Amino acid sequence: MGNTRSAPTLDDVAKEAGVSTATVSRCLNSPERVVEKTRIRVMKAVEEMGYTPNFAARVMAAKQSFTIGAIIPTMENAIFARGLQAFQDELRERGYTLLVSSSAYKPGIEKEQIRTLVARGVDGLLLIGHEREEQIYEYLERHRVPVLIAWSYSPDVRQTSVGFSNRDAIFELAQNVIDAGHSRIAMISGFTEGNDRAQKRVVGIRDALCANGIDPDSMELVETTYEIDSGANAFVDLMSRPTRPTVVMCGNDVLAAGALRGARKMGISVPEEVSITGFDDIELAEIVSPPLTTVHVPHRKMGHKAAQELIAMVEGSSEGASTCINTHIVSRQSLAKPPKNAATNK
Amino acid sequence: MGNTRSAPTLDDVAKEAGVSTATVSRCLNSPERVVEKTRIRVMKAVEEMGYTPNFAARVMAAKQSFTIGAIIPTMENAIFARGLQAFQDELRERGYTLLVSSSAYKPGIEKEQIRTLVARGVDGLLLIGHEREEQIYEYLERHRVPVLIAWSYSPDVRQTSVGFSNRDAIFELAQNVIDAGHSRIAMISGFTEGNDRAQKRVVGIRDALCANGIDPDSMELVETTYEIDSGANAFVDLMSRPTRPTVVMCGNDVLAAGALRGARKMGISVPEEVSITGFDDIELAEIVSPPLTTVHVPHRKMGHKAAQELIAMVEGSSEGASTCINTHIVSRQSLAKPPKNAATNK
Repeated sequence: MGNTRSAPTLDDVAKEAGVSTATVSRCLNSPERVVEKTRIRVMKAVEEMGYTPNFAARVMAAKQSFTIGAIIPTMENAIFARGLQAFQDELRERGYTLLVSSSAYKPGIEKEQIRTLVARGVDGLLLIGHEREEQIYEYLERHRVPVLIAWSYSPDVRQTSVGFSNRDAIFELAQNVIDAGHSRIAMISGFTEGNDRAQKRVVGIRDALCANGIDPDSMELVETTYEIDSGANAFVDLMSRPTRPTVVMCGNDVLAAGALRGARKMGISVPEEVSITGFDDIELAEIVSPPLTTVHVPHRKMGHKAAQELIAMVEGSSEGASTCINTHIVSRQSLAKPPKNAATNK
Repeated sequence: MGNTRSAPTLDDVAKEAGVSTATVSRCLNSPERVVEKTRIRVMKAVEEMGYTPNFAARVMAAKQSFTIGAIIPTMENAIFARGLQAFQDELRERGYTLLVSSSAYKPGIEKEQIRTLVARGVDGLLLIGHEREEQIYEYLERHRVPVLIAWSYSPDVRQTSVGFSNRDAIFELAQNVIDAGHSRIAMISGFTEGNDRAQKRVVGIRDALCANGIDPDSMELVETTYEIDSGANAFVDLMSRPTRPTVVMCGNDVLAAGALRGARKMGISVPEEVSITGFDDIELAEIVSPPLTTVHVPHRKMGHKAAQELIAMVEGSSEGASTCINTHIVSRQSLAKPPKNAATNK
């Protein structure tokens, strides 16, 4: 197995075919402008030597690379999987290839990956959430790479977004929780720094508490990584504090699955002793026991719509129109009334 | 938001800076060979106009792109997620960026994506499983792109692999199943066409049956997609046939989670009336109820090792050495003895 150091250059191909480098370029970019005999000789040399045509030159000829980049925070769990697959399916239908990078929720890594993808000539870019340095948006504008934000929608940002209101979605769930009789509400959230989706979910619950005359500062909050084990540990932490909550609302289904595991470990029954809620409605939500009451995010719909809009921006038929996707609450067994003694204890 | 049609060319930058295109190229590729005053003027034009330097030229200058490509069959479930994240983490440590594509288990799509990634100048490529057209390996060799196969290990293939023996792994599990007293074994497998991992898992169970004097043709087999719903449907199908199996061995944990769902739907209790086994030991295996007896695949270890070896191949310090990663059986509650009446019915 060789390595890239010995890859043939344009020069090598030109020498092999006995033509100028300009002729080789023309064969690759505008073959119709080269006489057939020469073209066949050149392409034979290209193929035999395993020359990879200068990609940038081909991009310039085609004006497009038909490649879209996407940077997601993690590949480790299924949060982004379904939406991204739908995004890719739609791109493929329209003749585009998707290249994905994952940033491990680190803004510095995301920035590097944006530059890498732009350097590889992507026609457009999908990013998750709005919050990042303004410079990055300026960089993308300067390089004329259209960017679309998914998983988040907010009327007061200028970037084109296909997403949902994280604040409104969890507000509705929190209202259901309060209507069921809960007032001692705790929350397990993903780390909020640099993650506007996580921030808005915390705000949404606080706003619902306010709207119902409950002190939002009474809400116990633990921030952690989006992992099952982290959710379990956070749950144990919350249930070991002086005043136990009657419901633990989780920033997503992965954390909620962890909370259920924590409850099992502590011998606390759900929902009899404590209710637990999720967010996303990924397959996990239905599989765990008891199944989770959660916010259903139409991931596939979001992925398809995001691809359609980003392609329209790349192809110049849209200047970028945002879409707010509606979420809804799915009621399953993990949310019930608070236990009687807890209610009277309040 | 503009589009790529109006992206500035090398010519535009040269005009703006009042130099030749060759000088602009030299500034980008060998800045030390250009006098400072000119270099500053050119780089200012490059930055102001948002010119993306010709990527292929930079790759030639650096001899490497420090980018690795990976093509996985699906992003939809967690099968590849953990191993891929470890692969990316290790690459990052070593200064490489990972670009991922998913092929939806379709050889034609994979072939396209290989060409796309090679055209973007990746230094090396990670592919899943060995089975693909010989032409593809020839193409990669001709382009001098080292390729490493993961998730599969077989002593009789020439490609460098960091994987495990799918056949031996499930053989061991099947032996455990037989030792527990089962002989009426059914299997739910992923589609085997073009998927050597799936093929080897079917072969492994059949070999174990043979080795224990059970007719391998007596094994009822359903092939389906790796989805929970598909697993549930396949389970219902198998349990509705004239002779019910006492154990349903599944090609992976996702199918096994589906089988559990099917059992719940039919009111069949696991493992009292039928045992179910998985493969992979992803988080799902521990979360479902009852938790799954399954094959533990050390995905993180495989991902790290694959990255180390592929980088060594790219950097020329290895010609490619294969590694067989050991798997082991994890015993949980989904596998027990066959029910008494079934045993006497045999």
